[in-house]
Amino acid sequence: MMHAVVKASSGPGAVFEQWPTPKPGLRDILVRIEATSICGTDMHIYDWHESIRDKVKPPMVMGHEFAGKIMEVGKEVSDLREGDIVSGETHIFCGKCFQCRTGNAHICERMLLRGVDTDGCFAKYHVLNEQHAWLNDRKIPIEVASAQEPLGNAVHAASAAEISGNTVAVFGCGPIGACLIGLCKSFGATKIFGIDIVDYRLKLAKDMGGDVLIDGSQQDPVKEIMRLTDGRGVDAFFEMSGAQPSFEEGFKALRPGGTAILFGLPSKKIELDVANWIVFKDAHVRGVFGRRLFGTWYKTAEVLKAGQVDLSKLITHRFDLEEFSKAFALMKSGRSGKIIMYPNKKHA
Amino acid sequence: MMHAVVKASSGPGAVFEQWPTPKPGLRDILVRIEATSICGTDMHIYDWHESIRDKVKPPMVMGHEFAGKIMEVGKEVSDLREGDIVSGETHIFCGKCFQCRTGNAHICERMLLRGVDTDGCFAKYHVLNEQHAWLNDRKIPIEVASAQEPLGNAVHAASAAEISGNTVAVFGCGPIGACLIGLCKSFGATKIFGIDIVDYRLKLAKDMGGDVLIDGSQQDPVKEIMRLTDGRGVDAFFEMSGAQPSFEEGFKALRPGGTAILFGLPSKKIELDVANWIVFKDAHVRGVFGRRLFGTWYKTAEVLKAGQVDLSKLITHRFDLEEFSKAFALMKSGRSGKIIMYPNKKHA
Amino acid sequence: MMHAVVKASSGPGAVFEQWPTPKPGLRDILVRIEATSICGTDMHIYDWHESIRDKVKPPMVMGHEFAGKIMEVGKEVSDLREGDIVSGETHIFCGKCFQCRTGNAHICERMLLRGVDTDGCFAKYHVLNEQHAWLNDRKIPIEVASAQEPLGNAVHAASAAEISGNTVAVFGCGPIGACLIGLCKSFGATKIFGIDIVDYRLKLAKDMGGDVLIDGSQQDPVKEIMRLTDGRGVDAFFEMSGAQPSFEEGFKALRPGGTAILFGLPSKKIELDVANWIVFKDAHVRGVFGRRLFGTWYKTAEVLKAGQVDLSKLITHRFDLEEFSKAFALMKSGRSGKIIMYPNKKHA
Amino acid sequence: MMHAVVKASSGPGAVFEQWPTPKPGLRDILVRIEATSICGTDMHIYDWHESIRDKVKPPMVMGHEFAGKIMEVGKEVSDLREGDIVSGETHIFCGKCFQCRTGNAHICERMLLRGVDTDGCFAKYHVLNEQHAWLNDRKIPIEVASAQEPLGNAVHAASAAEISGNTVAVFGCGPIGACLIGLCKSFGATKIFGIDIVDYRLKLAKDMGGDVLIDGSQQDPVKEIMRLTDGRGVDAFFEMSGAQPSFEEGFKALRPGGTAILFGLPSKKIELDVANWIVFKDAHVRGVFGRRLFGTWYKTAEVLKAGQVDLSKLITHRFDLEEFSKAFALMKSGRSGKIIMYPNKKHA
Repeated sequence: MMHAVVKASSGPGAVFEQWPTPKPGLRDILVRIEATSICGTDMHIYDWHESIRDKVKPPMVMGHEFAGKIMEVGKEVSDLREGDIVSGETHIFCGKCFQCRTGNAHICERMLLRGVDTDGCFAKYHVLNEQHAWLNDRKIPIEVASAQEPLGNAVHAASAAEISGNTVAVFGCGPIGACLIGLCKSFGATKIFGIDIVDYRLKLAKDMGGDVLIDGSQQDPVKEIMRLTDGRGVDAFFEMSGAQPSFEEGFKALRPGGTAILFGLPSKKIELDVANWIVFKDAHVRGVFGRRLFGTWYKTAEVLKAGQVDLSKLITHRFDLEEFSKAFALMKSGRSGKIIMYPNKKHA
Repeated sequence: MMHAVVKASSGPGAVFEQWPTPKPGLRDILVRIEATSICGTDMHIYDWHESIRDKVKPPMVMGHEFAGKIMEVGKEVSDLREGDIVSGETHIFCGKCFQCRTGNAHICERMLLRGVDTDGCFAKYHVLNEQHAWLNDRKIPIEVASAQEPLGNAVHAASAAEISGNTVAVFGCGPIGACLIGLCKSFGATKIFGIDIVDYRLKLAKDMGGDVLIDGSQQDPVKEIMRLTDGRGVDAFFEMSGAQPSFEEGFKALRPGGTAILFGLPSKKIELDVANWIVFKDAHVRGVFGRRLFGTWYKTAEVLKAGQVDLSKLITHRFDLEEFSKAFALMKSGRSGKIIMYPNKKHA
Repeated sequence: MMHAVVKASSGPGAVFEQWPTPKPGLRDILVRIEATSICGTDMHIYDWHESIRDKVKPPMVMGHEFAGKIMEVGKEVSDLREGDIVSGETHIFCGKCFQCRTGNAHICERMLLRGVDTDGCFAKYHVLNEQHAWLNDRKIPIEVASAQEPLGNAVHAASAAEISGNTVAVFGCGPIGACLIGLCKSFGATKIFGIDIVDYRLKLAKDMGGDVLIDGSQQDPVKEIMRLTDGRGVDAFFEMSGAQPSFEEGFKALRPGGTAILFGLPSKKIELDVANWIVFKDAHVRGVFGRRLFGTWYKTAEVLKAGQVDLSKLITHRFDLEEFSKAFALMKSGRSGKIIMYPNKKHA
Repeated sequence: MMHAVVKASSGPGAVFEQWPTPKPGLRDILVRIEATSICGTDMHIYDWHESIRDKVKPPMVMGHEFAGKIMEVGKEVSDLREGDIVSGETHIFCGKCFQCRTGNAHICERMLLRGVDTDGCFAKYHVLNEQHAWLNDRKIPIEVASAQEPLGNAVHAASAAEISGNTVAVFGCGPIGACLIGLCKSFGATKIFGIDIVDYRLKLAKDMGGDVLIDGSQQDPVKEIMRLTDGRGVDAFFEMSGAQPSFEEGFKALRPGGTAILFGLPSKKIELDVANWIVFKDAHVRGVFGRRLFGTWYKTAEVLKAGQVDLSKLITHRFDLEEFSKAFALMKSGRSGKIIMYPNKKHA
């Protein structure tokens, strides 16, 4: 048995309790979790948000972002060894469907989500199939290794537009948006606008390299962007918030022929002026989901190793795993970047 | 003086009356109009539709699609000669702005529209700048040369998705949609769905090569498409109608990782389930406007010369120009393909 | 034990003899070979060509193209069942290296080749891992299913250039080149040039849809292509032969801004006028190897099911497997398309 | 009359002498040259190199890179005014051919070269058509404005490969190669290899941001690159020298699936191992010529305004125009970056 953060029943909350230590199958690895981080989906499960009620079947172990050490490998595991430091892709793809077989495992037809459809990693140990594991370079700090999925989202989003030598606007500066801003900076965007309505996040965005930070509740982002791009608009905008006004402002601030990257998940339908915002502009619009498996992980690792994005700036708080309720409360306040939890050690 | 169809004043209707024969400037050509065709925009101007009231300043000559013979060339015209058969691009680009200088003249920053912002071609003669003219191959019949803009729209739309070896759905089977179906057939789409609610158009779509024609008022297009694609959905869908249900059905019938081409111009905002239709699907969405200048014209000409799309099937009616009011009434009925009018001869 | 065509020792030739029937492992399938076809690599092994001497370790079973029925599946096989009709991808990828994990398994870092590095399929039975198998649609004839790899090569090559509405030239009209011509026809190329020096092949190319067939030993392909493209050159050329003159003629006949697809494998270095053929032309050049796994297979299957390319035209001869030496002699003569052999039945 | 550097006759050398001041036509501008820079083509003309003998018709004014002030505009010039600071594109495109009309004016079918086919800018005054002029931002120093064409070459080359998050190797570190290295740095390449055999250039390359500088005459670049990329090879290589060994080393050091950009102009045919270097690698190879007109100029200007590449580091020497023979001698020595000459003032 081991300790884990368990979603014990339908309804808000979670408990820290004993749970059977998982056993690796033939192609699995058993990982001792060294660091695990909280993501928006975890918040939704914790709060028992409407959007996840149909998917989550308590009782189950929560969590999906982690880095840990391999303690045991199944007999048919070939490329990983005891002692390796790994993270795991959240999207548990089948490897055999049309999408998986055509290089699009990130939209697998039989996708399961770690910590949603299966037991997660807010625990001392976790088991996963070798094909969903990512071998970390030992130069990367364990907390950064745990929190590299949001950077991965940002890498995938950035890859869908032309950044180098272009102007970009990022609507929504939470951890993923802030990563994206850091990435755009390092990829040679000539001017980066960051838009949010929360002070704390605008500061994060600035720290990560944003050139012009706009509080959308105080200023009109469209006007500001137009003013600072000689009336042309940005070459690309990234919608990272899922909020109706961001779509509206983003498309209005986009130059004709530009690219709109949609990553945020609106909880309801969005109204779009398709004629003026998309057709007359001959705009490219890309939905961007998760990360390319594993192209994005490779690029993310290179970017981290080259020191191009300093993810540690985004890691603002640390807790022992048993303090998880404090961590969730802090995250809910909106006054945090990534929060790391430690299941197997007392952190300093 | 010459005869022309003149939008004489604000309000519905137009008149057939005398109008000064235009004179070519240094870089212009004077064209005797041999055939001219009616497009949806002409209908809007004729009907004094809300969408064009701010743009059109009567009195003016209507019309923008044509083919004709050059009667006179300005002194600085270098590549065209008297006797050449030409058509004209409707979008009068400046040639000097950012978009024009980067290969995107079709979204010129100072765009004017022939027959909207300037005098048009529903007349015996018309003048245009050499740079907006297209030299027709003499093998192409004059009516086809006049009506090649809708095929050009279709070529531009088709170029924005991968057609060959893929399944496609075309929502809206008016002349442009029908051209697109013919083009998809000739470009090797493996299955082509045509969706409309007007019988006449579904027949056109079938004649042009549609494999499965669906009357959206009778059958659920999503269900049909899913049934006939083994539950996967189409690789690409083309929204050619601007109607809310088409967006809804199109995105639902699109497979994850597929491409949505938006060409239709909705008269109001469209509601999109961005999360389920675009983000989770990692979809590519492209607004497509006009035609690439002049890449699309070159390809259109090649397609016509190779006999890949038989545009003459779409030309369903012919009138002398002075019978324009009959032509407009017929077009309004929805029971026509392209309608050709002749300003300079009695057609048989 | 079973009968098989065995490369028994270094040196030319092969023998038809007893060989142990293979046993499927946990993730393998055992296939009864219904039809198997000969490819150029098989010829090289048979002739003990210099290029394969380092790779092939006799004794071994030859052959890699096949279609057959699954007789037995390993315990961990999940998506295939006894009775399914399958083919197998020749390139045995590892599924775990950088290339495999980024959608490029066709250039796997640890690639093995069926019938070269492993036992092949010129036998009554063959075993392969589930992940390298392709489930055939039952509508596709068994001979066509066996011979779909060359069409796959053609699909991969065609996907690397823009075919629809463009002019193309195919240098080398063996089975793969002929497939490519059929594919370009069905994908809407406006003019297709086929170039070879063997009559038999030029006839194949014509049957598959080539518009202009050029015997390079009689006529200058560059002059012909220029004459028939108004002096512009082709939009794309495919080098399928590996011969120095084809590179030279192909690049000369390519229009500036065009695309060159290199598929043929020269046995020595090729001399290229890089300045005039590539740089000044701002040309795109693509090496194309094997097939995309499994994107190409999916598209190939769709094309076959839609009847767009009639592969049966390319299947010119049939033999019982034990007559393999006749089959090889015929193939060597150059007067054949694809040759099918049957290990488990007397063919009519 | 004005003073100019004149290629007076066939054979090496040039003279500084009186030449008629040019007069602008209807669509032309007259520019007072404030700064002009020397390029390799100028060297070839000066030395009467074999490659230019057929093209250059003495007597003529040399030179093509410049920045200057507009003194007079023709009557039909619309977007430029007296007093504007402009540079000029060297490639004088017609604006009317297939390539020009499809966004590829840089490979115009009737291209003329400034200072080769026409009089150039090594003079007090120069005339050019408005459509070939580029309006400089006043924030950009005049010397940088004169020398922005090599950065433009680099921008065009860099745009043809994926730089961000990738490893790159630049073979040939003259001014354009050095610009490219600066650009790759600013666009987020994770590791940049610069290869040359001249010390001076390797130092330039280092100053511009190269991570690993390799003297190809001392070390094996392939071995070094493999060692520092964990045996994988670089994601992209740029051939900027036109030398046989660079092609060989570049292709060997390229990872399978990578991109080769060919910019250097070999004076004779290059031998390529097409099978191993291109086909088996499924490599992308791009010929890159000049600059995209004017997409590259826009991006170049943005990059300069954002301070991403410090071009002034490359400007190593300055001369009055009449000292042109010293400037050419220095350039020939190989111990210079860009050399600026001033026709209208005494510098320093």
